[in-house]
Amino acid sequence: MAEDSVPPVDQMALATLNDDVSTPFVKAQFSDRVLIRTILSRPDGGASLAGQTVKVGGWVKTGREQGKGSFAFLELNDGSCPANLQVIVDAAVAPLGQLVQTGTCVHVEGLLKVPPEGTKQRVELRVEKVHHVGPVDPAKYPLPKTRLTLEFLRDFVHFRPRTNTISAVARIRNALAYATHTFFQNHGFLYIHTPIITTSDCEGAGEMFQVTTLISDAEKVEKELIKNPPPSEADIEAAKALVKEKGGAVAQLKSAKASKGEITASVAELNKAKENLSRLEERSKLKPGIPQKDGKIDYSQDFFARQAFLTVSGQLQVETYACAVSSVYTFGPTFRAEHSHTSRHLAEFWMVEPEIAFADLKDDMNCAEAYVKFLCQWLLDNCIDDMEFMAKNFDKGCIDRLRMVASTPFERISYTEAIKLLEEAVKKDKKFENKVEWGIDLASEHERFLTEVLFKKPVIVHDYPKGIKAFYMRLNDDMKTVAAMDVLVPKVGELIGGSQREERYEVIEKRILDMGLPLEPYEWYLDLRRYGTVKHCGFGLGFERMILFATGIDNIRDVIPFPRYPGRADL
Amino acid sequence: MAEDSVPPVDQMALATLNDDVSTPFVKAQFSDRVLIRTILSRPDGGASLAGQTVKVGGWVKTGREQGKGSFAFLELNDGSCPANLQVIVDAAVAPLGQLVQTGTCVHVEGLLKVPPEGTKQRVELRVEKVHHVGPVDPAKYPLPKTRLTLEFLRDFVHFRPRTNTISAVARIRNALAYATHTFFQNHGFLYIHTPIITTSDCEGAGEMFQVTTLISDAEKVEKELIKNPPPSEADIEAAKALVKEKGGAVAQLKSAKASKGEITASVAELNKAKENLSRLEERSKLKPGIPQKDGKIDYSQDFFARQAFLTVSGQLQVETYACAVSSVYTFGPTFRAEHSHTSRHLAEFWMVEPEIAFADLKDDMNCAEAYVKFLCQWLLDNCIDDMEFMAKNFDKGCIDRLRMVASTPFERISYTEAIKLLEEAVKKDKKFENKVEWGIDLASEHERFLTEVLFKKPVIVHDYPKGIKAFYMRLNDDMKTVAAMDVLVPKVGELIGGSQREERYEVIEKRILDMGLPLEPYEWYLDLRRYGTVKHCGFGLGFERMILFATGIDNIRDVIPFPRYPGRADL
Repeated sequence: MAEDSVPPVDQMALATLNDDVSTPFVKAQFSDRVLIRTILSRPDGGASLAGQTVKVGGWVKTGREQGKGSFAFLELNDGSCPANLQVIVDAAVAPLGQLVQTGTCVHVEGLLKVPPEGTKQRVELRVEKVHHVGPVDPAKYPLPKTRLTLEFLRDFVHFRPRTNTISAVARIRNALAYATHTFFQNHGFLYIHTPIITTSDCEGAGEMFQVTTLISDAEKVEKELIKNPPPSEADIEAAKALVKEKGGAVAQLKSAKASKGEITASVAELNKAKENLSRLEERSKLKPGIPQKDGKIDYSQDFFARQAFLTVSGQLQVETYACAVSSVYTFGPTFRAEHSHTSRHLAEFWMVEPEIAFADLKDDMNCAEAYVKFLCQWLLDNCIDDMEFMAKNFDKGCIDRLRMVASTPFERISYTEAIKLLEEAVKKDKKFENKVEWGIDLASEHERFLTEVLFKKPVIVHDYPKGIKAFYMRLNDDMKTVAAMDVLVPKVGELIGGSQREERYEVIEKRILDMGLPLEPYEWYLDLRRYGTVKHCGFGLGFERMILFATGIDNIRDVIPFPRYPGRADL
Repeated sequence: MAEDSVPPVDQMALATLNDDVSTPFVKAQFSDRVLIRTILSRPDGGASLAGQTVKVGGWVKTGREQGKGSFAFLELNDGSCPANLQVIVDAAVAPLGQLVQTGTCVHVEGLLKVPPEGTKQRVELRVEKVHHVGPVDPAKYPLPKTRLTLEFLRDFVHFRPRTNTISAVARIRNALAYATHTFFQNHGFLYIHTPIITTSDCEGAGEMFQVTTLISDAEKVEKELIKNPPPSEADIEAAKALVKEKGGAVAQLKSAKASKGEITASVAELNKAKENLSRLEERSKLKPGIPQKDGKIDYSQDFFARQAFLTVSGQLQVETYACAVSSVYTFGPTFRAEHSHTSRHLAEFWMVEPEIAFADLKDDMNCAEAYVKFLCQWLLDNCIDDMEFMAKNFDKGCIDRLRMVASTPFERISYTEAIKLLEEAVKKDKKFENKVEWGIDLASEHERFLTEVLFKKPVIVHDYPKGIKAFYMRLNDDMKTVAAMDVLVPKVGELIGGSQREERYEVIEKRILDMGLPLEPYEWYLDLRRYGTVKHCGFGLGFERMILFATGIDNIRDVIPFPRYPGRADL
């Protein structure tokens, strides 16, 4: 009755070609083909595999018929690496016309062989059997062979991963995500899933998306009322009269000492009349529109019985875990309902937020620096082919930048020192659009000047004026600055923002009040300081910013699979 | 100017105790202490570390003064493992009264030593210096030493990770998340971030949360209108009259051939009057309430210029990547606005959804089986101490269950066979609440009977009637069933649902229409079949269900850090 269970023999045979991963566990690829990467990424470019029969699948990048239509060359890509496998199909094996169209999906079996000398490839596949073809009508396919702009591709988010650039970004993004988990797991951090739907407003910032079922509930009620109009006053009065009448009948029978059967029947009629009345009264309460109370929306009728939002940061919530299991991080989507149409903002983006107990600002900076270095080294070790593609097509210097960041100690300067350096630059005729003076929030132009021009390497600026930072950052002894730090890197400016958190109950309570915020929504956060408080710190890294930094791509909409911004949320 | 960069020498020294992770990269713990796990989880229970001076931090589980107040024993836990470190503090080192309260945070330095014979511990810490105490007022702390129910703890989501159970769940959850990434990365899958905010309704299921800024925008307008009431008709008429008057003045000056200066001044006044009018007209359009058009809500004014929702599944979107880069998975939050108050439903939960190109239903089952086995083996290899805690406190059989699943081939039967087996059981007097006949959706009682009673191991049921499954599942040649599969496991029933996807354009178009769904919202999904279509399959695993299965915990609200369900979204 049962079929074979894993690993089936045929898959294990295929798996021998997939040996580039170093796990001791099952290696089957769960697919009737080998990944092209496992052929082409060998040190010899796959040449030593010549003579082996394999199945591969992928999409045709370019194809051309040759020898007067007697055979065809296909450049086949399956997304596992930037390189294409050269595939040769004889006209005797399959009709060539539809195979050569860009975008065609083919699933073929054949012999790996060393190509004639003088060609670029180290190995090519001579097809013996075509298992499947997913054809393309080139007149209609939206992604022709010609070079397309990233902006054009944003209108085809469902096809753009078939392009060289977007698939390379997907592999780099994947690598950075796994590197993130690997780094924090290796250092004993627990991955915590902080909530997406929240009833806390992290920074009192506003600009949050609301999550609600009130509108759809109201629409349901409206549809219902059109189908079944609510009862009129007269309907209800009539139902009331009926209850009274049936009640009277019961009383009469009882006082007349009627039979038990008669009384029971009469009581049943009374109950029916009562039920009918209460149903009508219930329905008469149904009002079209969103429920109101005292002139305001009645959120007690919303799904969570209160107003709910999409999170802007998991920090405050993950602190509850840091103050219990000590080293934690969160990595998930966050949201801002800002009407920003810039190349640096998304309405939905991913953040990495570690939080460390028994640690201060210096530990925080050490962790941030080690993490960024680890990410850069990981890309150099695991994605060098994709990085070479980026260097060739988008940003000549991107590989050197990764090397530099992975190997150079970050500069660390206080905010006060940073302001001094900027003021000195202004004296030497450097022009900034924004005025430089102690107390300002550093603008992007200042940050990039520090990291790109002055130090030419990553810079950590620490100890900012308290007036420009959030209430939860720890007040320094000078009473003027807080233990905050930002990591600035060439190309994108601020990559990381973090701080030591204020762990002293009286100090943080005063900070909240001084900022004019209400205490009530923060009671749970204050509780962490009331009971078993701990010195702790953390930071946030904007994941898409890291990808911009690594790849040199300019627009953040091109480094997330499904970008969300004002007016657009395709799919 | 710069401070030291990582890794600082003192941290590297501490790191020598953290050598239980096998990465070649920086090992600093980014904290001024060692993790208690790195002491107690050694094969010798830490005994060989005796004589070393270390710093540790954590929260006091229990404390007691001894020797007439001359010293205190503390059981210290830092969340890195279920075991506590026994800590001894002399009264000469610190006042003992506040140290011994449950929940107190302490950060201490001392000498590891072997305790006197006859005690349970293999090593204990004799404190030489107390660096920090975060006290607790036991009269007010909501988590006293007594055993608390999981239900009670749900009212304190910000403190409950300090309990043995919730911190063990956090470590198991973390392990399963990292195991998930490791499994798919090792098999060449790319991690794709599918969108949280979506304009597609995956299964036409309804019950979605709406994401909007219309309500907050309307509230802003209302506030504004209270502060600055909109212009009256008379205001606008007056402004119009002024424009006319100023226009007349310009015309008059022009026909009178007045000086350029006079005309310019007059035109400026006219322009000012026009601007004022258009501002007033703009403001007069401001209406309180949510914008309407043709009697319906005008979603063109919402943030994304159309109605938007929280995703119920990343499957359809991740298929766009499978049909481009071939082996992918998504792991993220998903949402259902169902008013379910059961122990198995959450409004926000996490799903793992792999999608494999060039693969059919058998490949899908192979992948699902290998993945579940890998997760079970991972917990046995990496979380045995937490699993022992679960076995002791929640589910005696949970470790045996993991061992059985990791090592036993899953039974595979068709739906039709499953129905036959259930019918045979009914004939032998097995009672089910739901009727058994071909065509029904298997109820939980049927699923659990198959996996727990009949086969006593995981069962994969495949090839279900098309009538009870989604439109995207591939139609079998019998035209009655689809290539779907569910993985059933003891304790929770359905753990995984998956299918081969319909890759044939004509077939899927007909299925959508047959189900009465509109084609338009699925055009992008149909495009994947129109151009370069590929045989592919995938499945979804409910991550919290996997944790319930592993731990034996009964209520899903206790296996996610911040549970969201009707009426509740704390923090």
